[in-house]
Formats: sequence, C-alpha cells, structure tokens
Amino acid sequence: MNGVKRLRFKKHKRAGQVGDRPGMIRIAEDALKPIISAYSYNKDELVTCEGRDIKAVLKQLDKCDNHTHWIKINGLGDAGLIEQIGEHCQINSLVLEDIANTHQRPKFDEYDDYAFCTSRIVYFNHDNEIINCQFSAIIKNNIIISFEEDHNENRFEAVKARLKAGKGSIRTDGPGYMCYALTDTIIDNYFVLLAEIGDHLDALEDKLYQSADKSIMFNAQQLKRTLIVVRRASWPERDKINDMIRSESPLVTPEVKLYLRDAYDHCIQAMDLIENYKEVTSSIIDLYLSMVSNRMNEIMKVLTIISVIFIPLTFIAGIYGMNFSRQDDKGHIIADNMPELYWHHGYIYAIVFMLLIAVIQVFVFWKKGWFNRL
Amino acid sequence: MNGVKRLRFKKHKRAGQVGDRPGMIRIAEDALKPIISAYSYNKDELVTCEGRDIKAVLKQLDKCDNHTHWIKINGLGDAGLIEQIGEHCQINSLVLEDIANTHQRPKFDEYDDYAFCTSRIVYFNHDNEIINCQFSAIIKNNIIISFEEDHNENRFEAVKARLKAGKGSIRTDGPGYMCYALTDTIIDNYFVLLAEIGDHLDALEDKLYQSADKSIMFNAQQLKRTLIVVRRASWPERDKINDMIRSESPLVTPEVKLYLRDAYDHCIQAMDLIENYKEVTSSIIDLYLSMVSNRMNEIMKVLTIISVIFIPLTFIAGIYGMNFSRQDDKGHIIADNMPELYWHHGYIYAIVFMLLIAVIQVFVFWKKGWFNRL
Amino acid sequence: MNGVKRLRFKKHKRAGQVGDRPGMIRIAEDALKPIISAYSYNKDELVTCEGRDIKAVLKQLDKCDNHTHWIKINGLGDAGLIEQIGEHCQINSLVLEDIANTHQRPKFDEYDDYAFCTSRIVYFNHDNEIINCQFSAIIKNNIIISFEEDHNENRFEAVKARLKAGKGSIRTDGPGYMCYALTDTIIDNYFVLLAEIGDHLDALEDKLYQSADKSIMFNAQQLKRTLIVVRRASWPERDKINDMIRSESPLVTPEVKLYLRDAYDHCIQAMDLIENYKEVTSSIIDLYLSMVSNRMNEIMKVLTIISVIFIPLTFIAGIYGMNFSRQDDKGHIIADNMPELYWHHGYIYAIVFMLLIAVIQVFVFWKKGWFNRL
Amino acid sequence: MNGVKRLRFKKHKRAGQVGDRPGMIRIAEDALKPIISAYSYNKDELVTCEGRDIKAVLKQLDKCDNHTHWIKINGLGDAGLIEQIGEHCQINSLVLEDIANTHQRPKFDEYDDYAFCTSRIVYFNHDNEIINCQFSAIIKNNIIISFEEDHNENRFEAVKARLKAGKGSIRTDGPGYMCYALTDTIIDNYFVLLAEIGDHLDALEDKLYQSADKSIMFNAQQLKRTLIVVRRASWPERDKINDMIRSESPLVTPEVKLYLRDAYDHCIQAMDLIENYKEVTSSIIDLYLSMVSNRMNEIMKVLTIISVIFIPLTFIAGIYGMNFSRQDDKGHIIADNMPELYWHHGYIYAIVFMLLIAVIQVFVFWKKGWFNRL
Amino acid sequence: MNGVKRLRFKKHKRAGQVGDRPGMIRIAEDALKPIISAYSYNKDELVTCEGRDIKAVLKQLDKCDNHTHWIKINGLGDAGLIEQIGEHCQINSLVLEDIANTHQRPKFDEYDDYAFCTSRIVYFNHDNEIINCQFSAIIKNNIIISFEEDHNENRFEAVKARLKAGKGSIRTDGPGYMCYALTDTIIDNYFVLLAEIGDHLDALEDKLYQSADKSIMFNAQQLKRTLIVVRRASWPERDKINDMIRSESPLVTPEVKLYLRDAYDHCIQAMDLIENYKEVTSSIIDLYLSMVSNRMNEIMKVLTIISVIFIPLTFIAGIYGMNFSRQDDKGHIIADNMPELYWHHGYIYAIVFMLLIAVIQVFVFWKKGWFNRL
Repeated sequence: MNGVKRLRFKKHKRAGQVGDRPGMIRIAEDALKPIISAYSYNKDELVTCEGRDIKAVLKQLDKCDNHTHWIKINGLGDAGLIEQIGEHCQINSLVLEDIANTHQRPKFDEYDDYAFCTSRIVYFNHDNEIINCQFSAIIKNNIIISFEEDHNENRFEAVKARLKAGKGSIRTDGPGYMCYALTDTIIDNYFVLLAEIGDHLDALEDKLYQSADKSIMFNAQQLKRTLIVVRRASWPERDKINDMIRSESPLVTPEVKLYLRDAYDHCIQAMDLIENYKEVTSSIIDLYLSMVSNRMNEIMKVLTIISVIFIPLTFIAGIYGMNFSRQDDKGHIIADNMPELYWHHGYIYAIVFMLLIAVIQVFVFWKKGWFNRL
Repeated sequence: MNGVKRLRFKKHKRAGQVGDRPGMIRIAEDALKPIISAYSYNKDELVTCEGRDIKAVLKQLDKCDNHTHWIKINGLGDAGLIEQIGEHCQINSLVLEDIANTHQRPKFDEYDDYAFCTSRIVYFNHDNEIINCQFSAIIKNNIIISFEEDHNENRFEAVKARLKAGKGSIRTDGPGYMCYALTDTIIDNYFVLLAEIGDHLDALEDKLYQSADKSIMFNAQQLKRTLIVVRRASWPERDKINDMIRSESPLVTPEVKLYLRDAYDHCIQAMDLIENYKEVTSSIIDLYLSMVSNRMNEIMKVLTIISVIFIPLTFIAGIYGMNFSRQDDKGHIIADNMPELYWHHGYIYAIVFMLLIAVIQVFVFWKKGWFNRL
Repeated sequence: MNGVKRLRFKKHKRAGQVGDRPGMIRIAEDALKPIISAYSYNKDELVTCEGRDIKAVLKQLDKCDNHTHWIKINGLGDAGLIEQIGEHCQINSLVLEDIANTHQRPKFDEYDDYAFCTSRIVYFNHDNEIINCQFSAIIKNNIIISFEEDHNENRFEAVKARLKAGKGSIRTDGPGYMCYALTDTIIDNYFVLLAEIGDHLDALEDKLYQSADKSIMFNAQQLKRTLIVVRRASWPERDKINDMIRSESPLVTPEVKLYLRDAYDHCIQAMDLIENYKEVTSSIIDLYLSMVSNRMNEIMKVLTIISVIFIPLTFIAGIYGMNFSRQDDKGHIIADNMPELYWHHGYIYAIVFMLLIAVIQVFVFWKKGWFNRL
Repeated sequence: MNGVKRLRFKKHKRAGQVGDRPGMIRIAEDALKPIISAYSYNKDELVTCEGRDIKAVLKQLDKCDNHTHWIKINGLGDAGLIEQIGEHCQINSLVLEDIANTHQRPKFDEYDDYAFCTSRIVYFNHDNEIINCQFSAIIKNNIIISFEEDHNENRFEAVKARLKAGKGSIRTDGPGYMCYALTDTIIDNYFVLLAEIGDHLDALEDKLYQSADKSIMFNAQQLKRTLIVVRRASWPERDKINDMIRSESPLVTPEVKLYLRDAYDHCIQAMDLIENYKEVTSSIIDLYLSMVSNRMNEIMKVLTIISVIFIPLTFIAGIYGMNFSRQDDKGHIIADNMPELYWHHGYIYAIVFMLLIAVIQVFVFWKKGWFNRL
Repeated sequence: MNGVKRLRFKKHKRAGQVGDRPGMIRIAEDALKPIISAYSYNKDELVTCEGRDIKAVLKQLDKCDNHTHWIKINGLGDAGLIEQIGEHCQINSLVLEDIANTHQRPKFDEYDDYAFCTSRIVYFNHDNEIINCQFSAIIKNNIIISFEEDHNENRFEAVKARLKAGKGSIRTDGPGYMCYALTDTIIDNYFVLLAEIGDHLDALEDKLYQSADKSIMFNAQQLKRTLIVVRRASWPERDKINDMIRSESPLVTPEVKLYLRDAYDHCIQAMDLIENYKEVTSSIIDLYLSMVSNRMNEIMKVLTIISVIFIPLTFIAGIYGMNFSRQDDKGHIIADNMPELYWHHGYIYAIVFMLLIAVIQVFVFWKKGWFNRL
C-alpha cells in the first residue's frame, strides 16, 4: 500500500500567456521532443515509416494516395512540426493551439472538412505517480493525425498489432474507425487504472481490519483525488463520444457509430466503477475515523479506570501515614489519636480494607458495563 | 446480525483486454459451464428440452415451427456456444461480446430484427455474501434466449410453473411477454433482497437500543454498500424499462407495454425503498456515533469526578504526613510545629474535615448539574 | 416530547409473491375487513347506503341512474369484493392489483373510459405512531370508488358534511370534483401532521435551551425520519396533481382543473414546510451535538484544573513527609538533612508556600483565559 | 451580536380547516384590522383617500374613471372587506382565499381579465425578530389592489414619493408598472435585510478571531435559518418575475417587461448573495468548532503535561517517606535499610535527583514538539 | 503561506436605495475618479487619446469616422460622465444604472442596435487581498466602451500591444472582436489567479506534511472562500459567452463566434480547475483535522500511560509510609505490624517489587498494542 505516493497536482500552468493572440502556439518548457510514426494502409498493404523527420512522412502521404494514413506523434515539443502539419492539412490555428496547450477537456469539434478530438490519458507511471496527459487527433478525409503528450509507445501496441494482422474492419473502415480504436483503447486503459485502484482499495481495507494506522487516511485521500482525476477525464469523454455518435460528418460512418455506442457503454461502466470506488473510499475513511476514535476511547477508558481504582487506596495509605500522636509525660506515644495504628494486625486490616474497596469499585464498574467494549 | 459478512467488492476485471478487436468474445476464467433448457410453447403445447447440448435445442427449434421458444442458458463458460447461437440467429458480434462480458448495466438495445436487453441480478448467497451477476436476453421473432451468469435454476421457477399451467397471456403473447415476465421476476427479487436488508436494519436498530458495540458501525457500512449495489442495479433498470415502453419495435406489443408500465411502477417502488433504507442506515450510524460518544463521555465524567473528590483529601493526608517537628533539649518533640498533630481527637477532626470537603465538592458538582446525564 | 415513539419502519412486504401472474390480487394477512358506504347524489337528492354488502350498493347504482355515485370502501381485506367491483366497472386487473398491494406511490393513470389515482395518507395514530396507508380511487363516468387501507371513517367527514349541505359545486360537478375534494382533504391533513411535527420541534428546541439530554438526539432523528415519510408521500403527489391538470380526460373538467391548481399550490406549500422542518431538525441536531461537546469540555476542564492545582501541593507535602535524618552518637536526630523540618514555624512557612503556589497557578490559568467559557 | 434573537419559527398554521369548501375565506385569529389607502392618478392628477372604510374608496373609483387606481390595504383581519373587493372586481373566490391565507409562495397567476401575484416580505422587526409576511396584489384593467399582512406603512414610502412627484413612468404606465414598482421595492428590501445579516456575520467573524464563545454557534445557526427564510422567499420570486416577463397578458406591457428584466437581475443578485452568506456562515461554524476543539486540546495538553511531570517526583517523595528501618539491640535505627536516608546531604541529593527527572521530562516533551501549538 | 490574509467580504451595499426610480445612477461613495483612454483604429491607422476629459474623446469619435473606437474607462466615480456617454450613444438608463451599480453578474444583454455585457475581474492586490470588481462594456456599430471599476491600467496591456502591432484580426474585426479579446484576457487572468491559489495550496500541503498548525485551517478556509468568489465569477461568465455565441446580433460576427467557442472552452477549463482546487482544499482540511486529532490522541495516550504506570507504585510507597506500629512495655516498636519494614533488605525488596509491577504494566500495554501509533 506504501506504493501510493503523494499526488502532487500539476500546476496546470497554461503554456500560453495572458492576452496572447488566439491561435498562437506556445510550447510548454518541459514538453518532449516529438517522435513520429506513420502507417499508410489499405486492404492489401501496410507501409510503415518511423523517425523524427516530418518531411519523410509527408512524402509518404503523397506517394500512397489510395491508402488511409495514421500519423502518430509522441511528444509536443516542436512548434514548427505542429505548424507544418497544420499548414499541410489546412487546419485552423485555434486547433493547433489546442494541440499544444495540453489542458483540453475531452471534446469533439467538427470543422468544414476535418474534425478534431481530444481525450485524457490517465495512468500510474513507474514511480506510482498519477500522470494525466493529453491525446488529440485530427481526422480528415483519409488521414488521422494523433498527438500524445508523452513518449509511451506501447499504449496502442494492440491497435498496431491488429493493423499488421489486417483482420477486422481496421484496414478498411477509414480514419473514423481508427479514431474509435484509439479512443476505445484509452477507455480500456481506464479499466486497467481502476483495477489498480481497486487493488489499492482492497489492500487498504485489509489493513483497516488488521492494523489501522494513520497512513490509511493519507492513502485514502490520495486515492480519492486520483479517482477525481479519472472522473474529470471520463465524464466529458462520454459527452464527446455522444457528440461523435450524433455527428453528421461523413468522417464518422454509421458502422463506426455502432462501435462508438459500444465505447459509450464502456465509458459509462467506467464512470459507474469510479462512483462505486469513491463511495468505497469514503466508507473506508469513515470506518477508519470511527476505529481510531474507538481504540483511543478504549485505551483512555482502561487507563482511567486503573487510576480511579488506585486513587482511594492511595488516600487511605495517606491517612495512615499521618503523624497524629499523643505523648504522655515521658514523651511516649499514647494510642489515643489514631488507635488503629496500634491495634494487633491493624496493618492486615488496612490492607484488607483497601482490597475490599478495590473489589467494590471493580464490581460497580463491571455492573455498569464499563468493561464492555463500546 | 452477525450474518452480514464483509462485502468484498468483486474486482470488476473485464474479461476483455486492452485493444481487443471489438466483438471479440473472451470468457472470464471463473465462468461456469453452461446448462441449457429450452421451452417451445404455443397455446396448446409445451415442449421441454434440458441438457448441455445446444445442437439438440437447435434441432427442436426447427421442428416446432409454430411455437414460441425460450432458450434459457445458465453459465457463460463456453465461447463456442455463444458464437453458435449468434450465428444461428445472426446476432451482431458486439452483442455477443456484451453477453460474455458480464459487467453491462441494464439496457435495451434494438437492432434490425432483434432486440437485446440486460439486467443485474442481485441476491445474498448461502454464505450471506452479496452476489451481483448479469442477466441478458436476445429477443427475436418467435424466440427469446436468456443468459444468466450463475447456475441458480430456481430463480424463474414461478415463470416455468405459469408456463406449465398455461394460464394467462404467457403462452400466447410471444417473446416480448416472456422478456417482461423475466424482468418482472428480477425486480420482484429486489424486494426479497430489500426485505432481508430491512430485517438486518431492524436487527441493527434493536441492537443499537440494547447493547451498542462497534460491530454496528461495520454492519451499517456493509448494508450501505449493499444498498449502493442494488441502487446501481435498479436505477438503469428503470431507464431500460422506459426504453422498452417507448420502443417502436414489433417485439414489444402494446399489451406487453401495459404490463411494463406495471413493472416500471415496481421498479420505482424499489428505488424508493432503497433511498428510504439508505436514510435509515445513515440515521443509525449517526445515532451510534452519538451514543458511543455519550457513553464514553459519561464514563470519563464519573471517573474524573471521583478523582477530583479524592485529590484534595489525599493532599490533606499528605500534609499531616509531613515530619515537621521541634525538639526540646532532650530531643523530645515539642508541639510547636504542627500542633494539630498533638491535639486531643486531632485525628477525628482531620477525618471530619476531609469528609466535609468531600461533601462540599459533591454538593457543588451536583448543584452544577454535573451528575445529570448529558 | 416523550410522545414521539420509536418509528418502526413497516417491513414493506409486498403482498404479492415473486413471479406472480400480473394482475393477481393478493390480500395482505393483516388487511382489515371492508366497510362500505355509498352516496348517490345529484342536485336535488342524496341517497346514502352503508354496510358490508356490496350487492346492496350495486343495486342502488342501478336504481339511481341520473345520480353521481361515491362508493367509499374502508379496509381491503376481501379480494372478492375488489374483483366484483372490477368486474362491474370493467377495470383492468393490473389496477385491481394496485388497489390491493398497498405500496403504490401517488399516481394518476388514465385508461379508456376510466381513471385510477392513488395517494398516501400519513398521520400519527393514538399511540403516536406514524401510519402511512394507501388511498386509491377509480373514477368513471358518473361513479367514483375510493379505497382506504384503514378504518378511520372520520377522515372525510367534512366532505360528507358538504355533500349533505348540498352547497358549492360538490353536488353538481361529478366524480372528478369529488376526487379533487378527497385529494385536497388528504393534502390538508398533511398540514395537520406538519403542525404536530412543528409542535414537537418547538418542544425539542425548548428542551435544547433548558436541559439538553440525549433523548433530543433520538427524538430529532425520529422526526427527521417522519419528515422523510411525509416527503415521500407529498413529492409524487405533486406530480400526480400535475398529471391530472394536464390530463385530457373528460373526467377532469376545466372547472375541476382550476381547483386542482389550488391543490397543487397547497402541495408545494406542504413540501416547502417539510424542507423547512428538515433544516430545523438538522440545525437542532448540530446545536445539540455542539452543546454536549461544550458541556463535557467545560466539566473536564474544571476537573482537570482542580487536579493540576493540587498536584504540586501534594508533591510538596510528599517531600516533607520524607524520612531523611541524621543521627548523632546518641541516636538523636540532627537537623542537618532537611533542616526546614526543625525550623521555628517551618510548618506555617510550608503551608504559606503551598498557598502561594496554588494562587500563582490560579492566576496563570486565569490570565490565559482558561476559566472563560469556551 | 447579542442582537440576534432566537428565531422562533411561526407555526404556519393555515387559517383554513381540513375539508373546507375551496374558496372559503378564513381569517387568522391574530390578523390585524385593515387600514385602507387609495391613490387615483393619471398624468395630471393624484387623488388620495385614506381610512378604514372601503365604501369611500369604491366611490372614488367610480368618480375618477380615467385614472389608474392603487388601493393599498394593510392588515387582513376583515373577511367582509376582502369579499366586498372580490365582488366589486369579480375575483375568483380561490384568489380571495389565497389573499387571506398568508402562506402563499410568490407566484403570478393570470385569469381572464385580471392577474394575481404574491410575494414574501421579510425583515427584522424592532425586537430583532425575523418577520416573514405576505404581500399580494390583484391587477386589473386600470386598478391594482395590494394587500400586506402587517401595518408597516413606510415600506412603500419611496413609491408614494415618486407618485407624488409625478416623474418617470409611474403616473403613466398603468397598474402593471405599479406592480413592478412594488415588487422591486420588496426585492430592494431583501438587500437591506442581507446587509444587516452581512453586518451580523462580520461581527460574528470578528468575535471568532477575538473571543470565541459558544454564542457564536447559536448565532451562526440563527443566521443560517434566517438566510433559509430569505432564500425560500427569493427563489420562487425569481420564477414569478420570469412568469410575468413571459406573460402575454396586456396588463404587463413590453415597457414594464424591460423593467422586470432588471428586477429579475436584482433577484438573482440577492440569491447569489444569500448563497454567499450561507457559505460564509458554514465556514464560520467550521472554524469555530475547530477553534474550540483546538483550545480545549491545548488546555488539556498543558494540564496533562504538568500532571505527568509531577507524578514521578511525587513517587520518589513517596519512596523516601517509607518507614523501612532496622533496629539494633537498643532499639536504635541502623542505616541498613534505606541508607540514603542517613547520608550526608541525602536530602539535597534527592531534591537534585527530582529536579533532574523533571528537566529530562521537559526536555523529552519539548524535543517531541509537544509544547508546540497544534 | 502567511501571505493569505483574512478575506473580508465586501459589504455588497448596493449604491442604489430602496424604491429608487429605475435607471437612476447612484455612485458608490468610494468610487474612483474615471481615467479615459480612447483608441480609434482601422487597418491602417491607430489614433490614441488619453486623459480625464470625455469631450476630447467624443470629438475624436466624430473625426475618425471610418475607424473602430475603443473607449476604455477606469473608475466609475463620475455620474455625469456615464450619463454623457449614455446620451451620446443613446443607451437605456437601466444599462447605465448597471454600469454604476457594480454588483452585476456576468451577462450579455442585446438591445436594438447595441449590446451590453459585464464580467467580474478577480485578482489578489498588493496586500494579498482578494479584489472582485466589475468590467462592463457597451458594444455598438463601430464603437466599444469598456468600464472597469478600478484603476489597474496594465490589465489589457497585451491587447493594446496587439493593437499597436496591428497583426491578427484585432484591427479589422470590429468591436465584437475587441469585446472577445477583453473577455478572453479576463478569463486568462482567472488562470493567473488560480495558479497563485494552486501555489498557496501546494504550500499549505507542504506545511501539512511538515509542521501542521492551526493557521492551516484558517488559510484553507480563506482559500475555499476565494475559490467560491472565482467560481461565482466564472459560472455565469460561461453562460454569458454561450449567450454571445448564440446571439443573432450583427455585432457578433461568425468569425468572432469561432473565437468565442475557444474562450468558452477556456472558461470551462477554469471552472474545472476551480472544482479541482475546491476538492483539494476540502481534502487538506480533512487531513489536517485528522492529523490534529491523531497528534493530540498520541500525546494524551503517552501521558496517560506514564501516569498509570506510576499510580500503583506511588500507592505501594504510600503503604510503606503508613505508621502502623506496636510498642512493647518500653515503648520500643515491635515488628509485629508491618514486619516487612524490619526485614533485612526489605527496602530493596520493595523497590524490586515496584520495578516488577512497572515492567508488567509496560509489557501488558505493549502486548495490547497501545504503544503502536494509532
């Protein structure tokens, strides 16, 4: 469970500055250099091209003119690249700004002859930190250009594999289907993330029942915040898919809409699961607080009962430690004040008296049910 | 009340994997082997066929061509079986995927010449664990194929009995009516479950008034979560029934819609009851927390009052235990320092003085109302 | 205030069983035997007939053919009676089932030539228990048949009186008006109930300011739950009245709709009042919890301050109770160790020193504001 | 701050009785006798008439036939008066009932040739009690009759002044404008009330930072409830104004609608302010509870640390107060048991040892940061 | 973190008085004297004029008749100025009232040939106090007049710079675009503010993990309230932009609508961020309360355990401090009562016995896990 780290919330500094001309592309300082892969495919053929040079890719576009092209860009650290693509495909500069400014909510915007969509990719990285980065895609005619903020190249491995295998509709259904396939993979990854969160919650709950300590509170709060991050990613995702389904653009074919309905269901299932986990997290926090309070109360109760039992005994011992005395003429002490002190077996009587008081106290407290667990 | 076990939330691992081709049927590892029952009925006749062999069933379908068929499948552990059915009835592979992936929310989807609906079955099993499994049904022409995730064969016993008896509309109103009958039975079972939860709540409340211990908190939280499970099952169920009522498919006849309106009312009653029980549960938790706090306060108050009464007395005893003395030339102690010690009956005076102080304290505390229950 | 009893929530066991044929009338075990009253009235005449025999009533219906008939049935313990009425008026069996199964939410359903509506009757009975029973009515042509779950025959006394007096529209405006009159009376009774709850809340608040004890918490929680019961009755009631207003059935005449708008306003006023009382209840609970906590803190603070004042004093007394001594050759004690013990007036000095310490402590605590009420 | 009195919530007893004939006017027992003022004005002239006699007013109506008339009635204690007005203007008896039954929510109802609207007037009276009384108005043709539940005649002083001055649209824009002017004044008064509440909140917050005592909790709860009262008045007021703006009645001219849009904005501003103050109140309560808890914790911590420091010291003093001794033949005590008692400077050593222990304890506690404020 | 000051909520005294004639301009007492800047620009030219004299500006308007004019007014302390502008542009007096009464919510109102919009400007001033002032703008034909409540002239520096540079659409797209540019700058400034709040939250959280003290509670509450202020500014801002996008006024050209869609997205991002920060703030408060409670519990537990260990020891010391004795004829004490006192090494035995008891206690408490952190 110690795996859950403190979730530092990214400062959400928008790369742009106050008063910037709309459509101005500003690259964040820590943006990664782009890596480009291009896949040109039709029913019969799959041409692949990887590298960092956009020109080679654009050349391939021109060459394979009866193919569908998927250009996959990881890393947004090069404003020139984005502008070049924008120019080549005649994309509005506001869209290019949205690609570079990685704080977009999931949305689907239609333009004259192309469409633009964004999603949030959320996952735990190797340091168990939560990463919330942006996926965006431009869909046009026979081309889809996808942008990911990070360098994780394995994310769409399964899509690439299906592309290579050439089975299913992936080779034949155009860029709309590819957009669906990528979106669906992103949503599927939410379930992977939620399964991890579920494991964490399970571990937390085990710990709660075994050895509750205050890390539970911290971890539960961190999970709660992580869930909020996923939720903020998946709620607008649902609206986005809905927009795609109701779109009248020729880029989203009726066949793709059928698949999107499926993705829509998955998205709702993810949201359901998130709400469920949020309630579980709250319940864990409530139980933890109640347990801590109970344990503390239990300890204080026992300690206080021990104190209270000894207090009257100590008082009695104190009484017989008093130096009251009466002396006769010769300075001898006369058993006149505190005669008990001079009795045969007075000491035994005193001890027995004390024991009696202790027993009575224990009996009374037990009778009142104070030894029961609360 | 000890019957309510810790509710481990199922990991909700979707059988599918990230990037799977849409429509791919993946069977969960712990899925049960299917048991098949087929009922072919018309106004005059009821032909039954049970077993594990789908071929015998399909043969019966061909044979009884002026019958309505209800094929009931318990257990989803055989991908081949689902594919065979899909092929025979020409069902979209996305639907088949939804049958196998048992995390669907209740929904009603219409296709060209068939419809598909899902529900959640929620019940306590013999170990008092909450089970949340999937019911799905394909409705077509003159056939309804229902899938249940588990092997509980008694669930629809009453429906079978009505089928055997042949009374009412069940034999004549086609697969739409059968779909209603099964859905209504599932909703009726929510009331059975809710009655059990109501009993648990009643027992919890009795315990609250008699001997509140911390199991109340745990049990109440478990019941709360169980209620959330039922709620997540019944809310979309209502929408699903509404979709069926507003459907224009010929599979849902106007007569069936009248019955569905009835089922809709039942579903809303169940939701009402769930909300009611949720409020009761919250109220029990609030009362419990308040009671624990009150009891603890009561104990601490009494103990502290006892301590405080004895503390000044012990102090006085301590004073007369001091060894102040003045000696004359002969080393005899002179009653000059602490003359009280040498008074006649000094001891008695001291005891009386202590008693007096104790009485005054008790009086003051009583006057301030500190002995009253808070 | 002790009048508010523990509100046991009725088990809400639906009389029907899982898988029952729809439209099957099942009578709850504790249902009361029906008492029947029939009022046949037109502008000039009012014929009354009371008893337990439905046949006499049906005969009267045939006889008075230009009258409007109000048949009032108290108690639902006779399935045969309901079926007879259903047959006579040609009522759908699903409606009859809803009459017998007394867990309907308020609703207004229109059928071909009749309408069916239900309401919840909520009141405190003589044992101050909250009763939540069902009112339902079938409206047809020139007849209204009302069903009440209990035997309280005074509920509609004012309506009967107006009927006898023959003033206003009641004699002339048909069964729709009568339905309005009964519904309005039920809503008026919510105000009676709410006035009682308001009195309870007022008493609770008085008690809060005078002598808060833990019964406040219990009573406030009970009132909260009672308010939830009324709320669950009145919210759908509003929708029901709205449905009636928007209905196009000839049974609800434009004139009656005008009155219904009035009833609608009353219903919203009741809901407003309920929300108001709920907020007051929450505020009472919050204040109570804060007061208990304050009082407890106050007590503990005073007690602890007393303890702390005496602890150093007792320590000093303990020091001078130590037996350090030095003896000379003759075994006489030499004032070498602990010479204070042998000083003139050493005892007085010690007492004064103790007093001084006590005074300093009191001064410091007072200076820090610890004697102020929190 | 002591100005905020306990907010007794009016019993909301509706004057009517269960089962009353609709439209029956029942006057509340504590209703005030009506005072009547009538203002007949046109562009050139303003005729005023005040008193308690409705007949004089009705005569004036007939006399000034090309004037607009504003009849202002303070106090609803005379059913006859209301009936007379109702008869003269041919008002539906349900409307008259709503005027007398002063628990209406703000609403705007249109009838054939007149309209009826109500508002809530909320203010602190001279005893700082919150008063929530009803304003209602009948608008017809060239007449507006306004009813106020109380006798406060200064409320609309500014409106009267503008009427006398004769500037602006007030003289020329008919009864619709007058209705707007009165409503706007009522809303303006919400801001006066909210400013008072804001002052109270400010004072409460000052007190919180200076000398928090438990009156803060009570006062904050009272303010919260007051805010709820204003909120319940202003929310439906907004809907009412919206209804007026969308009304197609000729009584609300387009020019008046423009002004109503302005009043609508004011109403939303008031609602905004109310929500704001509610959040501030909650924040004050949270801070107060946290502060009380902190202060109490601080006190208990200091007291407990003092106790713990002295407890081991008292124990050591107790040890050297033990009477262990060994006697030689002559009855002299031999320094064999507890030789420390017979050491040179043994006493000094003991004192130093105690001091050492105290210092170590203080050091350890300080090191652990227990002297820091929490 | 000490930078966050107590957020005194402005009294929100509306400048107007109860019953004011609608459209009356009342200037708040503390309103600042206006500073006027005018920018007249077209594709080729930019004429600037600054000062306090509105006449010079109006003259410029007449002179540059094929320009677009932006008149920027900082400070609303001159009713005459507002009236002059209103007269010159023929603006409704209600609009002028809204400009002067600086409590408007963001809104966009269309009139015959002009439009009026307001926004809230929210920022921390140099004293780290939150300022919430009003921005309003009248858009007409070829003129936009913007009003700011304060004197901060750097706010729109970037817009002025773009105007001077003459790039982009700013010079050519008319007053609608300028209105967009100003609104977008205001929204961009929300992100600056939110970044500051994010820094504060980060600092608070660091403090929480390092040295939690009660300033956290105060600061978190202040941040919460600040967030509420921003939220109340940005929520209606979104609606306002939406109104602008859906407006059919020629003042908002389709090109500007495209940019407004972008601003709409930014506004939603800001709202998202606000909700996020609110949740973080709540989580910090929850964690803080839990930590304080845990720390206090830890301290009290340790202190109480120390007390309880010493209490029985002190009791034993008390026992052997009792003066039980028996004397023989010669007044010698006989080891008959309390013989332990006269044993060889009795003292050592007693000390060892005490140590034993202490060790047993420590062992038992450790075994029970009471030394573990809760």
